[in-house]
Amino acid sequence: MTTSESHLKQEILEQPDVLRRLLAEERSTIRRVAQAIRHYNPHYIMLAARGSSDNAARYGQYLFGTVNRMPVALAAPSLYTLYQTPPRMTGSLVIAISQSGQSPDIVAVIEEGRQQGALTVAIVNDPDSPLAQAAEYTICLHAGLEQSVAATKTYTASLAAIAMLSAAIAESDEYLHAIEAMPAAVAQVTAQADAIIRASERYRYMEACVVISRGYNYATAYEIALKLKELTYILAEPYSTADFQHGPLALVAKGFPVLSAVSQGPMVEELTEFLAELKQRGAELVIISAHEPALNLAQTPLRLPPDIPGWLSPVVAVVPGQLMALGLAIAKGYDIDQPRGIHKVTLTE
Amino acid sequence: MTTSESHLKQEILEQPDVLRRLLAEERSTIRRVAQAIRHYNPHYIMLAARGSSDNAARYGQYLFGTVNRMPVALAAPSLYTLYQTPPRMTGSLVIAISQSGQSPDIVAVIEEGRQQGALTVAIVNDPDSPLAQAAEYTICLHAGLEQSVAATKTYTASLAAIAMLSAAIAESDEYLHAIEAMPAAVAQVTAQADAIIRASERYRYMEACVVISRGYNYATAYEIALKLKELTYILAEPYSTADFQHGPLALVAKGFPVLSAVSQGPMVEELTEFLAELKQRGAELVIISAHEPALNLAQTPLRLPPDIPGWLSPVVAVVPGQLMALGLAIAKGYDIDQPRGIHKVTLTE
Repeated sequence: MTTSESHLKQEILEQPDVLRRLLAEERSTIRRVAQAIRHYNPHYIMLAARGSSDNAARYGQYLFGTVNRMPVALAAPSLYTLYQTPPRMTGSLVIAISQSGQSPDIVAVIEEGRQQGALTVAIVNDPDSPLAQAAEYTICLHAGLEQSVAATKTYTASLAAIAMLSAAIAESDEYLHAIEAMPAAVAQVTAQADAIIRASERYRYMEACVVISRGYNYATAYEIALKLKELTYILAEPYSTADFQHGPLALVAKGFPVLSAVSQGPMVEELTEFLAELKQRGAELVIISAHEPALNLAQTPLRLPPDIPGWLSPVVAVVPGQLMALGLAIAKGYDIDQPRGIHKVTLTE
Repeated sequence: MTTSESHLKQEILEQPDVLRRLLAEERSTIRRVAQAIRHYNPHYIMLAARGSSDNAARYGQYLFGTVNRMPVALAAPSLYTLYQTPPRMTGSLVIAISQSGQSPDIVAVIEEGRQQGALTVAIVNDPDSPLAQAAEYTICLHAGLEQSVAATKTYTASLAAIAMLSAAIAESDEYLHAIEAMPAAVAQVTAQADAIIRASERYRYMEACVVISRGYNYATAYEIALKLKELTYILAEPYSTADFQHGPLALVAKGFPVLSAVSQGPMVEELTEFLAELKQRGAELVIISAHEPALNLAQTPLRLPPDIPGWLSPVVAVVPGQLMALGLAIAKGYDIDQPRGIHKVTLTE
């Protein structure tokens, strides 16, 4: 197998098909789970996840918060395994997200929630996993086997499953209709795969960067940073613009690389202005966007299809970042499917 | 003013006095707030903060979770300012933490909570600030004016205020008694200030590092990383051991610096083992601990006083990290009280 035929690249390119399959196969299950949630009427949602799935959970925090007005807590899983008295979860909806469904600490959160009488939902790729068995309801990602250690298709499928669940809780056909456009939108990005991989060569000697976004794409910043760390051993740190201004802005000096996903929505102008300010300080900008004024700032503009609503943009905006991490790993000559030191399933307790 | 007389150093050294003042001045107010919270019996706590205060909130997530069994959501403040439909907060306790009490987005979370009938508490250093005025209850940090842009004494005071509130909600005299020992414990660390500043010189040419911890000291990892970024422009990234194993472990190569706070508690052995594994991979270790096996692994051991309970250790364990950030800023010749590009009060919306 040559570098260009890595599992990772195949799995990135498979994403439109995975999303189509998820939409076709899981719609009725998700409608049933949404009915149970509306009936239960939880005080709040507790989301439990690790790694890429935790980045999907971050998207859930914003989406359930704005679309469904449900407050979301991101669980600290060690509270359920390392300490003797886990938090009360009565009246809550506990959603665990995991590709493998194997992490003991994530399973523990679902088990504790179920024991306390909370409504429990697992979003997993493996429907026979311990996590799927522990939860009352299971939503399957239908992503097929993911062989690369770095998660890609299971991440975008998790985002889409969260979006479908949010739309179903809101009983919004309009939202569901918008989600149906995502496979084609992602395909427009994967069609540019080789161009994005080539464009990444410019960053062959980059040793560190930050990935900045806000709102829904805060999750995208986290996930792109994680892909870069896993695949290229670059120190890539994710930030919201707000947190970045509270201190780390000090890091930016001439040539310092800043990646950013700029989507439609209430913060597009503010984020574009902030990136213009970083450019004035000498930052090198890689910008993932459909917004021309933002793209025009970038040394490396990575264009997204137009007209993707902000709340769905994370499903598409992460893909150029996945391809850039792949491109950099190729340029640096690293093993793409088996990065040093990490494993596909991590049995954290 | 010479470098050694920076506001930052003075403020770090003031911390035992600040904690004594907080304990003396705010005990009865905190008891009253705790009574209101017990009476209200919230479904969950929503914590809203930015920067160092957000790291204090992370400590609150663990402490309220384990000691009071209260589930904690860390608010995404932009949900309250950038989007039109903020999450429902009925039945929740909303706690905002802010040194200045000025950030509009944090004030917006409290205002929205109060309008929705939630119980609202502000933890602030400035009792006349907009945040203090917006909240139903105010806990004052009594830290005095903080002149350095990098927060130190307001951070440890925020941790102590959270610990006092948690102990008061639990109606535990034993816990409150343990908090009373903190000023003396912090004084044992500040007494080593010049030795820690000298020990930092070894890292004069360090360009990047990770800060790793778990449980209560996850907050400490975040806060030490933030001090390093603000004061020394090093890319310093915080991790829990669990998240670090899910990907970023790939970063560790020979000489890669890893800072860690290792406190008493259920994870001390596991964390020590993990650090031993990193050492085998060639990591350079800076370890803040009272645990001999952990200290013995370190090229730079930073010793804490013995017998500090794990749940209070963040109040003390951050201090060697503050001093190391100060020492590195001196070694690198940077402006200590006015790092480039950041301001004391950030008016994020």
